[in-house]
Amino acid sequence: MKLVPTQDNIILKQVDAEKTTASGIVLPDSAKEKPVMAEVIAVGPGYTAEGKEVKMEVKPGDRVLYTQYAGTKAKLDGVEYIIVSMGDIKAIVEE
Amino acid sequence: MKLVPTQDNIILKQVDAEKTTASGIVLPDSAKEKPVMAEVIAVGPGYTAEGKEVKMEVKPGDRVLYTQYAGTKAKLDGVEYIIVSMGDIKAIVEE
Amino acid sequence: MKLVPTQDNIILKQVDAEKTTASGIVLPDSAKEKPVMAEVIAVGPGYTAEGKEVKMEVKPGDRVLYTQYAGTKAKLDGVEYIIVSMGDIKAIVEE
Amino acid sequence: MKLVPTQDNIILKQVDAEKTTASGIVLPDSAKEKPVMAEVIAVGPGYTAEGKEVKMEVKPGDRVLYTQYAGTKAKLDGVEYIIVSMGDIKAIVEE
Amino acid sequence: MKLVPTQDNIILKQVDAEKTTASGIVLPDSAKEKPVMAEVIAVGPGYTAEGKEVKMEVKPGDRVLYTQYAGTKAKLDGVEYIIVSMGDIKAIVEE
Amino acid sequence: MKLVPTQDNIILKQVDAEKTTASGIVLPDSAKEKPVMAEVIAVGPGYTAEGKEVKMEVKPGDRVLYTQYAGTKAKLDGVEYIIVSMGDIKAIVEE
Amino acid sequence: MKLVPTQDNIILKQVDAEKTTASGIVLPDSAKEKPVMAEVIAVGPGYTAEGKEVKMEVKPGDRVLYTQYAGTKAKLDGVEYIIVSMGDIKAIVEE
Repeated sequence: MKLVPTQDNIILKQVDAEKTTASGIVLPDSAKEKPVMAEVIAVGPGYTAEGKEVKMEVKPGDRVLYTQYAGTKAKLDGVEYIIVSMGDIKAIVEE
Repeated sequence: MKLVPTQDNIILKQVDAEKTTASGIVLPDSAKEKPVMAEVIAVGPGYTAEGKEVKMEVKPGDRVLYTQYAGTKAKLDGVEYIIVSMGDIKAIVEE
Repeated sequence: MKLVPTQDNIILKQVDAEKTTASGIVLPDSAKEKPVMAEVIAVGPGYTAEGKEVKMEVKPGDRVLYTQYAGTKAKLDGVEYIIVSMGDIKAIVEE
Repeated sequence: MKLVPTQDNIILKQVDAEKTTASGIVLPDSAKEKPVMAEVIAVGPGYTAEGKEVKMEVKPGDRVLYTQYAGTKAKLDGVEYIIVSMGDIKAIVEE
Repeated sequence: MKLVPTQDNIILKQVDAEKTTASGIVLPDSAKEKPVMAEVIAVGPGYTAEGKEVKMEVKPGDRVLYTQYAGTKAKLDGVEYIIVSMGDIKAIVEE
Repeated sequence: MKLVPTQDNIILKQVDAEKTTASGIVLPDSAKEKPVMAEVIAVGPGYTAEGKEVKMEVKPGDRVLYTQYAGTKAKLDGVEYIIVSMGDIKAIVEE
Repeated sequence: MKLVPTQDNIILKQVDAEKTTASGIVLPDSAKEKPVMAEVIAVGPGYTAEGKEVKMEVKPGDRVLYTQYAGTKAKLDGVEYIIVSMGDIKAIVEE
């Protein structure tokens, strides 16, 4: 069973905290709108709710920083996913 | 008697809780804007209230995650339906 | 004397409660934004206030579900009408 | 001296209450946004403040229902006028 | 020294109260958004802040009704001017 | 060291109060949104944050009236500058 | 490891206070929306969340003034970055 995102939605899986620290990203608590690191699981076709096209700039496997308060959560087969739209992703984290 | 959605409206029927658990989706209570799983019953032609066209990315029979606080409810012949617009649907759940 | 709607306005006449029950639609009280069933009396030419064109997807005689808190009311020759815009109509109820 | 409306503005003169009753329109007090019947005096060329074009669907002499809380008032030579924009007019009242 | 309006701005000079009464316009105090009569002094080229074009429907010397709470004021060589945008003007007052 | 404005930003330097009085502009304290006179120092290329083009209607050296509560301030080499966007400028003051 | 900005996002690194003072920029505390000086680290391709294109007017190495309350923060390998969008940058500081 899998989630296939619609429109410009992107399915993310939060990267676990230990891994995050190891890779050197520390997200400050004080930031008003904190970006959070996650792995891209699936990417929608790129249409907004108003019918416009958006370039989907990420692909499955990418590590990304996204706006924490954006998105909705769903648990599937015991794994928790976050669904955000393209505009909630701020940067790709490259090794 | 049936509901034929207008514009980019979509008629959904909530999937009952037992079935949901069986298929492995558990929706956390803590999420601020919880997506909810439902079955697509009927799909509108895809126009927004402002006259734009929206690609309707779901079809009758699809299982979808949608934003819970979106939509309006109606009971028809004893069955409760939820009417949402395309932008309220976040992902299709494929087996 | 009759009402000829302008723009994307639609003149509705609420279907009386007995009839509604007979046809099997029951509208739950708990819904935050309740759709209400009504009959379409007249349909505007389909322009929005901003000059865009909207496809008018209903015709006189249609039974429709519309968003209850939308619209304005007027009584004409003893009959109460509701004037809504196309975007307030969610579905056509077909027998 | 006369008022020549700009943009999509329309000059209205409220139809007096006796006449209104005679012609069968009664406007309920309970409606949240009450439409009010008025006569069209003059019609602007049909541009919005953002430079879009709007079809002016009424002409001088038309009886119209408009949204009461819209518009601005002006008294000219002892007659009170209401200036609304095209989007505030909901329907034409035809005999 | 003179004011040359930019974009869709219009420089107005309020018509003095005595003159207003003489010409028959009386503006009621009770109106929520009162239009006020003024003389057009200078007219901008007709671009909005978002880069759209707006038809400037008034010319210097025109008497106009504008929305009172719109606009900004400036005193130049002892004369007070009001700067409004095209959308704040509701009608031209013709003799 | 100098400030080169981006998009439709404009760098202004407030005209000192003595000079202002001398040239005859007095800005009333009671105005809700007071325009303020300033000298244009530098002008951006004319793109809005949404990617639209805006005609930059002012040039360095122009005296302009701008909306006081708009803009951000920066001090550079002891001189205080105000950065506004094109839409915050209401008029050019010509001698 | 590095941050590759998406859409019209820009990765900034705040210029340290000593350096700022040396180069002559002093940012007043009283300003309601203070611009802050930073160095551009990386620049996104220039698409907005709505799918429009924005000209990215800055390049890595540029010193820029940006709106302080905009943006999100992230710490990577011990360095704190700020991610803003093109519209949050007001000017380039040239030597």
